[in-house]
Amino acid sequence: MTSVEHSPLTRKLSAFVALSEVELAVLERLHQRRRSFVAGRDMVHQGQTARAAYILSAGWVCSYKLQADGTRQIVDFQVPGDFLGLRSVLLRTSDHSFEPIVDIEAAEVLTSDLLEAFAQTPRLATAILWAASRDEAMVVEHLVGIGRRDADARMAHFLLELGSRLALVGMGSKEGYDCPLTQYHLADALGLSAVHVNRVLRQLRESGLVTFRDGHVAFHDYGRLTDFADFDPEYLDQTGPLLA
Amino acid sequence: MTSVEHSPLTRKLSAFVALSEVELAVLERLHQRRRSFVAGRDMVHQGQTARAAYILSAGWVCSYKLQADGTRQIVDFQVPGDFLGLRSVLLRTSDHSFEPIVDIEAAEVLTSDLLEAFAQTPRLATAILWAASRDEAMVVEHLVGIGRRDADARMAHFLLELGSRLALVGMGSKEGYDCPLTQYHLADALGLSAVHVNRVLRQLRESGLVTFRDGHVAFHDYGRLTDFADFDPEYLDQTGPLLA
Repeated sequence: MTSVEHSPLTRKLSAFVALSEVELAVLERLHQRRRSFVAGRDMVHQGQTARAAYILSAGWVCSYKLQADGTRQIVDFQVPGDFLGLRSVLLRTSDHSFEPIVDIEAAEVLTSDLLEAFAQTPRLATAILWAASRDEAMVVEHLVGIGRRDADARMAHFLLELGSRLALVGMGSKEGYDCPLTQYHLADALGLSAVHVNRVLRQLRESGLVTFRDGHVAFHDYGRLTDFADFDPEYLDQTGPLLA
Repeated sequence: MTSVEHSPLTRKLSAFVALSEVELAVLERLHQRRRSFVAGRDMVHQGQTARAAYILSAGWVCSYKLQADGTRQIVDFQVPGDFLGLRSVLLRTSDHSFEPIVDIEAAEVLTSDLLEAFAQTPRLATAILWAASRDEAMVVEHLVGIGRRDADARMAHFLLELGSRLALVGMGSKEGYDCPLTQYHLADALGLSAVHVNRVLRQLRESGLVTFRDGHVAFHDYGRLTDFADFDPEYLDQTGPLLA
């Protein structure tokens, strides 16, 4: 078994399924069609017929919907190990756009590739359904967050969620993580203005909770930040394989 | 092939996969453990360890999250043919509660049942992943809706979405559908007060667009309502099987 054994998707799915040699080999084949995309140029447009999904192996992507009034609602960010457009390829039309935030590496996956992989190992189908369910749980959290959390708690919750997701693929810890997002990304994701984002980040920093500066998020007091945000990571389900 | 051929889930999945005899038989086995639940009593509590998912065959359910301040955010409603708690059983802990709105009939599905079904027919795994993706697309629409649509358009969009979902399982049309929801359900789903819901419904009725009264939604001018709500049903993906 080669590098895929340590690919971010493999690390992530291993949180749910103890993968066998056969399953690792099937996952490896899903990574065959490697593609690169440059920062800032949409790789999938809203309304476009979706022909393929992607497994993100390096870099960050944001998925967003444009409103009729021209404003942008960022639905989520994708980090290494995440699928891009799995929903779109199954629903045939992309209901949103994907834009790489930095230059990225991804593997292209066709519906037929997925079907073939599922035929070879149904446990992999369950693991991918798990990953899709986890993505949906995050969108539900964001829905509740926009409705109910104030700006400071919403930001804190968001930075903690990203940290947990990155920790799962070995790119973050309770100390912090590297993060290429700008204040404009944060604003469009959290429903705040860029000025408001700036003020909220300053407050969190001055409270000694977390600093986001120069592309790095540093948690100063993880426990207190978790309490402050009322962050319960249970919905991210990272406690170890369910399927032995 | 017996009644399951016409079960709501079968009708729904048929929108995505042209089901073979073998696949119909596997679906039938998933319906074996039939259960009934009474209206108004949670069948799954938020935070509870999830041991089973359910396929809803008759009745309506709402899924909701309770906030720390005691308010309730309804995440979605489930209608016949929908899975309940598929996400919860995969994520092991339910991130929300399920409450039957009327007395319901459902089939209990264990993770092991799903794995077995996927092993027998991987196309079914893809179809269920499709259904989960469609559920996620709806939550994304609700996220955008709460952020961006005014109360009238939000209500109109919601009633149209429900109509499309019900039409897929033979329980609604462009004329309308039976609907057991109260104004309190609508309020908690749309982030409005019950008084506000009442006013919005009156406005929509007086505009000759739609009437929701005595457990029935009647569309008076489907085309005009669709324009008014900016409702594009593409995210519900009901245009016919992708997998032949």
